[in-house]
Amino acid sequence: MDVYYERYNTLRAVIDARLATVIERQCPVTMYEPARYVLNGGGKRIRPILVMLACEAAGGDVRDAIDAGVAVEILHNFTLVHDDIMDHAATRRGRQTVHTKWDRNIAILVGDLLMGNAYKTLLNTERGDLRALTRVFTDGVIEVCEGQSYDKEFEHRSAVSEAEYLMMIGKKTGWLVAISAEMGAIIGGADERSRTALLEYARCVGRAFQVQDDLLDVVADEETLGKPVGGDILEGKKTYLLVTALDSATGEDLDLLQTVAQRNAPRTGLVDRVTEIYRRLGVLDSARNRINDDTQAAIRALNALGDNEGHRMLVWFAHMLLERKH
Amino acid sequence: MDVYYERYNTLRAVIDARLATVIERQCPVTMYEPARYVLNGGGKRIRPILVMLACEAAGGDVRDAIDAGVAVEILHNFTLVHDDIMDHAATRRGRQTVHTKWDRNIAILVGDLLMGNAYKTLLNTERGDLRALTRVFTDGVIEVCEGQSYDKEFEHRSAVSEAEYLMMIGKKTGWLVAISAEMGAIIGGADERSRTALLEYARCVGRAFQVQDDLLDVVADEETLGKPVGGDILEGKKTYLLVTALDSATGEDLDLLQTVAQRNAPRTGLVDRVTEIYRRLGVLDSARNRINDDTQAAIRALNALGDNEGHRMLVWFAHMLLERKH
Repeated sequence: MDVYYERYNTLRAVIDARLATVIERQCPVTMYEPARYVLNGGGKRIRPILVMLACEAAGGDVRDAIDAGVAVEILHNFTLVHDDIMDHAATRRGRQTVHTKWDRNIAILVGDLLMGNAYKTLLNTERGDLRALTRVFTDGVIEVCEGQSYDKEFEHRSAVSEAEYLMMIGKKTGWLVAISAEMGAIIGGADERSRTALLEYARCVGRAFQVQDDLLDVVADEETLGKPVGGDILEGKKTYLLVTALDSATGEDLDLLQTVAQRNAPRTGLVDRVTEIYRRLGVLDSARNRINDDTQAAIRALNALGDNEGHRMLVWFAHMLLERKH
Repeated sequence: MDVYYERYNTLRAVIDARLATVIERQCPVTMYEPARYVLNGGGKRIRPILVMLACEAAGGDVRDAIDAGVAVEILHNFTLVHDDIMDHAATRRGRQTVHTKWDRNIAILVGDLLMGNAYKTLLNTERGDLRALTRVFTDGVIEVCEGQSYDKEFEHRSAVSEAEYLMMIGKKTGWLVAISAEMGAIIGGADERSRTALLEYARCVGRAFQVQDDLLDVVADEETLGKPVGGDILEGKKTYLLVTALDSATGEDLDLLQTVAQRNAPRTGLVDRVTEIYRRLGVLDSARNRINDDTQAAIRALNALGDNEGHRMLVWFAHMLLERKH
């Protein structure tokens, strides 16, 4: 495993270094300082690394995919900045959000600017069909907006089905993961079969990643997570856990979960009580199974590809995400 | 003049018809309904018509420039939706703004979605170098963000020089007008000389247009303007008029203008008093001269182009903008 992890860290360092140089200008300082703050905030850089590995698995050179990878990461950060305004989130990855550290207007502008810079970076890509690449990227922008819109709609609804939840999260979170692989495939010159395989891999990985995010909110260690455990429960967020629990709960359990979903549950002891219900109903185990199944399906999808370093890295990558603690 | 005006209206109808079909999807309705509302809001469609006419003046076919024109118009509307949030503007073109009619979160999302749709439409363009075209467009996104950022910065400053004002407005408003001509030139296959000429034309027209906006706020008829006269004065907006008046005012005039700039002037009778100062200091005339000079410079720039229908339409277009009442 160590050699893979080392390579992952190398690629991540490449991305971080490039992200640090994306914002070249200094003025207007009220916009560029927070923009730089956002891009230097660290993170797992899952999306750009997927772009690079998918490119490699398709037979291309990871270096040709750096710009596209950085572009997807900037796009991802743009969505975080705007979502944090809409969600009134005060912190992100253990740091203040832009609208908290500066103000809301600045956060709106910084998000817009980041989208511009995402395209600017993408347009440096020299391999692959630029029109196809930019179209896939642009569909990503639109789908992510749809996902966030559904997410906000669902906040005002007491009932959301598991299918609706998976549709929403597939757009809001899964889509950028999926297009990362698709863009890598385009740059790497993948044939139709490989492109489909890489897309399927990324769809499965993206879904597993999101369900795990929901799971970690409940079962993770607070320090490792970098934010308070149970935040989703307190916010009444319609997570995979809450949505599936609402499907099977009865009696008092159902009553409590409904008040959580309607965001008027008494907060004292709430996280422990809801976690206990989740455990009793088996939704934590079912989430774990779902993550595991999706990870296996992701790895199976890669069978359509030839054996190469990129392929092996993608297998490792899916396992790594499965075992993460935050 | 009539034949030109008729052609302008024809082109505008083409743009309006295309804008009405940009948003194909219905769901999530909370996002797509306001997005459609924005794009169906009318307007002079100056930018898309410039894209088309510049393309024609460069020797191309207006039809090849429709997608790019619609893209710039969508981009322009995206900036309006987000700027209106930041400026707490309740109405726009006589209609409620998105964040007023719906809410702020929806307005953020609708703006983001519009940017995605702007690129999606742009990518349908089949003539011209797509990379060059998308780069010019993307620089537009970034410059517009910078312009809005400077505009917000200037709100918190008591003194802004004329040069700073022109720099800011060149980014915030002028840039999209300028790139409209540049994009048309790229699609029409303009040589370097024609491209430069069209860009210069649009820069001058854009500046004249903005100074006239500032002027109309004070001298227009309220009904024709579609919003209350003197709104900029009440908001303490650093317009061309206020900035140049601050440069030459003394004594009580200067004191009053400074309270306007600091946004703590008493509102009663303020618009009339400030308008009277503007008149007395000659800033209204100097604005008119500036608009006139820029319009003439725009038309002179076109001399580098051959004589054709597009060229003649651009000359008419500059005059039409000069004579507009709102």
